[in-house]
Amino acid sequence: MDTWMRFMSSDGGIVFGRVEGGYLHEYESLDQRVPTGAVLSTRALTPLAPCAPGTVIALWNNYHALAAKLDKPVPAHPLFLLKPAGSVIGDGATIRRPVSYAGKIVYEGELGIVIGRRCRNANLADAAASIFGYTIVNDVTAADLINENPHFPQWCRAKGFDTFCCLGPAIVSGFDWQAGSVVTMLDGVERQNYPLADMVFSPAEQVSLISQDLTLEPGDVIACGTSLGVGSIKDGATVTVTIAGIGTLSNTLEATREIEAVAAARTAANAV
Amino acid sequence: MDTWMRFMSSDGGIVFGRVEGGYLHEYESLDQRVPTGAVLSTRALTPLAPCAPGTVIALWNNYHALAAKLDKPVPAHPLFLLKPAGSVIGDGATIRRPVSYAGKIVYEGELGIVIGRRCRNANLADAAASIFGYTIVNDVTAADLINENPHFPQWCRAKGFDTFCCLGPAIVSGFDWQAGSVVTMLDGVERQNYPLADMVFSPAEQVSLISQDLTLEPGDVIACGTSLGVGSIKDGATVTVTIAGIGTLSNTLEATREIEAVAAARTAANAV
Repeated sequence: MDTWMRFMSSDGGIVFGRVEGGYLHEYESLDQRVPTGAVLSTRALTPLAPCAPGTVIALWNNYHALAAKLDKPVPAHPLFLLKPAGSVIGDGATIRRPVSYAGKIVYEGELGIVIGRRCRNANLADAAASIFGYTIVNDVTAADLINENPHFPQWCRAKGFDTFCCLGPAIVSGFDWQAGSVVTMLDGVERQNYPLADMVFSPAEQVSLISQDLTLEPGDVIACGTSLGVGSIKDGATVTVTIAGIGTLSNTLEATREIEAVAAARTAANAV
Repeated sequence: MDTWMRFMSSDGGIVFGRVEGGYLHEYESLDQRVPTGAVLSTRALTPLAPCAPGTVIALWNNYHALAAKLDKPVPAHPLFLLKPAGSVIGDGATIRRPVSYAGKIVYEGELGIVIGRRCRNANLADAAASIFGYTIVNDVTAADLINENPHFPQWCRAKGFDTFCCLGPAIVSGFDWQAGSVVTMLDGVERQNYPLADMVFSPAEQVSLISQDLTLEPGDVIACGTSLGVGSIKDGATVTVTIAGIGTLSNTLEATREIEAVAAARTAANAV
């Protein structure tokens, strides 16, 4: 197992590489995995999301336990929506409440598959070989919007707001997902704890089947769907999603006072 | 009105610029609109989609005539899904039938808004100023998939296959959309002819409202939705979408013999 991270350096440049003992061993990129020779102390670097996906595919109804609770049949093909690239933030970054939305915002702790090479119409073996590693996703959702319009479920809008795709802290290659579990804590209280082995479509099956729909590119992320225990995040609350072997992804929904300051600044700007 | 196009040059490089009288006046990029000084004959260049959007936002139910026909109320906020960046092809490129899908594939002729500068929480004036120009979209859809699963409408999958976002041939800045109309022909027979003035949300309203959901970046495209006359494309048929003042976007769904050749090659590859 290797741990891969992406950082901003003090000069504003972006560096990617393998992290070991507090040092980043820099590599050209996620798909050009050639060491540059540079070794940097991670203390001098600012962590970013571990990759910059062009496409984020987010699955719905991919755990047997959740399907049973929802009383829905297990799907025959991965059911997914897309989250825009601009929704991605890294570990420690703030989830921002949309200015136009006062409703319920929920967390969904998930495993994330990170694609390592271009992948189209892949069989299972090719799909497995196309997986660079695994990360953690908090698939944040403005839950009240999904069915706000009775004629068109707004999955992309509800899950596509800026900052609604928390990703990180690292990508771990060689991670044994079958033995893993997702633990989500809300302000320190456990809310989700489910085994990855309960997935309907395994990571390689997801990559293979989705690659028959659209070409997957290096750095693209498939969020594998969530299971039981999804719940509301109050303004100011912190969500941590932990997958032992990968790490902990921690993000706070901006506090009410920050939202009020933004609203006041907006009103002032519109008045000019 | 200026006409902007993107091409591949003979050395494989990508060039973007203003086209006039058969010549491309090259510019740095869509968001850095600085002339490079190079002037190239377009005859030596291969046309590409006129921009490379990171995000393609596709609206549903944005024309009064279609809403009336569907007997749906006009929405209060743009209803949209996302098409992946990899689904984009240019004028003249082939629409490919997904290997796993034998069902109905439909055309949807649409106006496309091309974003010229980063745009977030924009008021109407800022939104209007963020529009670089307009292009034509054929929002190709694997119609049978949308409601294949009764529990989850697969909008992103049905509209997200590789080659399912035909875009081009050009971006026209200063285009007067209010006087325009979309004419879609299937193998030379007119199937759609609707006025852009029938839109529910005007282009500036779309940009303003969507920018409150997600940050729009230069080159991003909003497909404004379609109106009456959507229909099926048989394998081998050619769809042209014309908006006078912008041009004609022409794409052919691959012929059955090509599909059979691909299927045979696939079977052979899997047998290895």
